Amino acid sequence: MKEQLSPSELREEIRSGKWTSPTTGLARGYVQANLVIVPRDVAFDFLLFCVRNPKPCPILDVLEAGKVEPRIAPGADIRRDVPMYRIFEGGEFNSEVEDVVDYFHDGMVTFLLGCSFSFENALLAAGLPVRNIEEGKNVSMYVTNRDCVPAGLFSAPLVVSMRPMKPEEAIRAAQITTRFHLTHGAPVHLGSPEELGIEDLGMPDFGDPVTIKEDEIPVFWACGVTSTLAATSRPLPLVITHAPGHMFVTDLKDEALTLL
Amino acid sequence: MKEQLSPSELREEIRSGKWTSPTTGLARGYVQANLVIVPRDVAFDFLLFCVRNPKPCPILDVLEAGKVEPRIAPGADIRRDVPMYRIFEGGEFNSEVEDVVDYFHDGMVTFLLGCSFSFENALLAAGLPVRNIEEGKNVSMYVTNRDCVPAGLFSAPLVVSMRPMKPEEAIRAAQITTRFHLTHGAPVHLGSPEELGIEDLGMPDFGDPVTIKEDEIPVFWACGVTSTLAATSRPLPLVITHAPGHMFVTDLKDEALTLL
Repeated sequence: MKEQLSPSELREEIRSGKWTSPTTGLARGYVQANLVIVPRDVAFDFLLFCVRNPKPCPILDVLEAGKVEPRIAPGADIRRDVPMYRIFEGGEFNSEVEDVVDYFHDGMVTFLLGCSFSFENALLAAGLPVRNIEEGKNVSMYVTNRDCVPAGLFSAPLVVSMRPMKPEEAIRAAQITTRFHLTHGAPVHLGSPEELGIEDLGMPDFGDPVTIKEDEIPVFWACGVTSTLAATSRPLPLVITHAPGHMFVTDLKDEALTLL
Repeated sequence: MKEQLSPSELREEIRSGKWTSPTTGLARGYVQANLVIVPRDVAFDFLLFCVRNPKPCPILDVLEAGKVEPRIAPGADIRRDVPMYRIFEGGEFNSEVEDVVDYFHDGMVTFLLGCSFSFENALLAAGLPVRNIEEGKNVSMYVTNRDCVPAGLFSAPLVVSMRPMKPEEAIRAAQITTRFHLTHGAPVHLGSPEELGIEDLGMPDFGDPVTIKEDEIPVFWACGVTSTLAATSRPLPLVITHAPGHMFVTDLKDEALTLL
């Protein structure tokens, strides 16, 4: 029944420790966000990285240093309202934790970036296949051979997510996701995975492999995991992210993000 | 014949001092940009202001501190390639100068923001009236009663530009400018200027008044002057902007900015 919870009700469940699992399909119709928290002295560089790479890193909200309540989720506390966080120290993964009250401090700057969950709902509503949802899996994600535009300290390869579709479905999906420019927008590539440096679609770098039918082609969208790779590309003293699939749920309606 | 110059040829004319006038209509088909240069210690706040107010302040490019060559204009020098600059010291207008070589230093961060010249070409191409161009005037601009979302140090009222059209032309103009989301996008308001706190359309705060015909309504777009008001809303030691109408001409084609 968590699909029916409002975003604030769901965040309350998360804050109280009752929900520590992925947020896929919860509070349906509301925008979920990737979380990246970095030290203040690199915040300009990281913001610039996002601005220069809007398809993988579309900015939904950025909080001034030390602030914990996003404008797009009044009453929320960014330190407690994500079901599972990841802590990186010196650029290395350290641990997963259920809140970051003991890590967050006045010198930390929070970024909330768009996530593909919003456009997946729109694809489903249009009758298009979303294989990872059909098969109850995490979406297939791949590190590509394309570099993002670097900014200051930060660089990263483009990471993409993949959903298989028939060619005519891929065209319709391109139309639909174009409207969602703040949750990765139109695909970045389709067909020929080898042009992205992907050798085996059955071996994703993150997430799970999904079935690709004979009459389907792979359709690739820019993926928010790119932001995690960028934020951890340097040995910063502390970086905090959400754990994969454990997103921050905002009060924004999916439709509020569309350009058209 | 300056309409036919390439952006780099035009910048060369400007750099050599041969062209010190407004850039309206020059290097037609290429994106022109608002320029704002601020000290490094407030650059994060100013970038955040732009991110939070994308309609008046759509980001085309941001340069790391001390850099003078934008990615969107290879070979350009941001200190010399604008026909006329304005210098603000302590938040107050100081002077207009033809280059800023003696002002710019390693601690200054350059912002290039979208400008309505791009969508005006698209409106003309669609057969819609652009009264300020028809009458050879600068577009009418008004400071509204709407506040932008503040960010760190910076705040500003929303400034709008106005073009009068028949209602059915206004609808078509909304469709066309929606595609140009990096040059202010769709209108923010139409009709009823009093709702924006505008008392007399014949007395713009910036630019010139234009003729409004009996069967026309005013159509309002977010305006890049907002960024100048924000950057000078605090008594910073140094802020550099372009002089009104004297824009930075990029190598980007207008069509390259469209979402669709």
